[in-house]
Amino acid sequence: MEETKERKIVVAVDESEESMEALSWSLDNLFPYGSNNTLILLYVKPPLSVYSSIDAAGFIVTGDPVAALKKYEHELVESVMARSRTVYQDFESDINIERRVGRGDAKEVIRNVVQKLMADMLVIGTHDYGFFKRALLGSVSEYCAKRVKCPVIIVKKKNPQNN
Amino acid sequence: MEETKERKIVVAVDESEESMEALSWSLDNLFPYGSNNTLILLYVKPPLSVYSSIDAAGFIVTGDPVAALKKYEHELVESVMARSRTVYQDFESDINIERRVGRGDAKEVIRNVVQKLMADMLVIGTHDYGFFKRALLGSVSEYCAKRVKCPVIIVKKKNPQNN
Repeated sequence: MEETKERKIVVAVDESEESMEALSWSLDNLFPYGSNNTLILLYVKPPLSVYSSIDAAGFIVTGDPVAALKKYEHELVESVMARSRTVYQDFESDINIERRVGRGDAKEVIRNVVQKLMADMLVIGTHDYGFFKRALLGSVSEYCAKRVKCPVIIVKKKNPQNN
Repeated sequence: MEETKERKIVVAVDESEESMEALSWSLDNLFPYGSNNTLILLYVKPPLSVYSSIDAAGFIVTGDPVAALKKYEHELVESVMARSRTVYQDFESDINIERRVGRGDAKEVIRNVVQKLMADMLVIGTHDYGFFKRALLGSVSEYCAKRVKCPVIIVKKKNPQNN
């Protein structure tokens, strides 16, 4: 009975290897043969205000910084989605795939999308970044684990050095 | 190919409804028909020192407190395992089930068992307890999400009031 229930599984993807690991893990574990589950790839672009804070913090940005950064982030989205495609293309079963791109504070956007779609699961890769990226992204999985209503799956990058 | 890989799935169970929800969710989502996955039910008894701190904090314990508490916790283990049985007995497929009972700081014991068994996943229900129980148990899922190497699945109690 449960096998035929269609589940909506949101996988948060970004430029990190961890998120590709999370995607790969999801395909291997949450899409059993014959399931009607839907994979929703969610990418969240940071709020534009992030860029102005980078600028204000003393980074040198020449030309039209907002246009350049928008182009850069568009390329990032495309690159992340293309990388995701290489992961799910290898997957043998046919699965329903949707892509969503949001903008804002990643944790808030992910939470809102999950609630709005009434998703059945959220899968997030965890990051092992340095200070700056951690400040932007590091608390996403923690926040979601606490605040998202559906089960949250936190996938680590495979690393034999981890303890 | 992936369907035939045998996965070891540790589900942390205790006296909470959340952990039974986590068990039920695991059966529905991680044991597709025909899988060879093994369900490892893990119950962790608190360290005995917890009881002496309760005593030290002014609780009135008459008779032989340690013997009484050991009896109580033995009954708890039996009760939790019996409750787990009612959950997995309804599950239609035959699955391999192992039971483990540890003692100590729940988060440390869970982490150690997961590492030792080289488990493929850890599933934990989250608690929405008051201060005292949260102090003992509340941070287990957070700790495990950070420190356990394999994917960690955090399952919430279904509650329409959650946001």
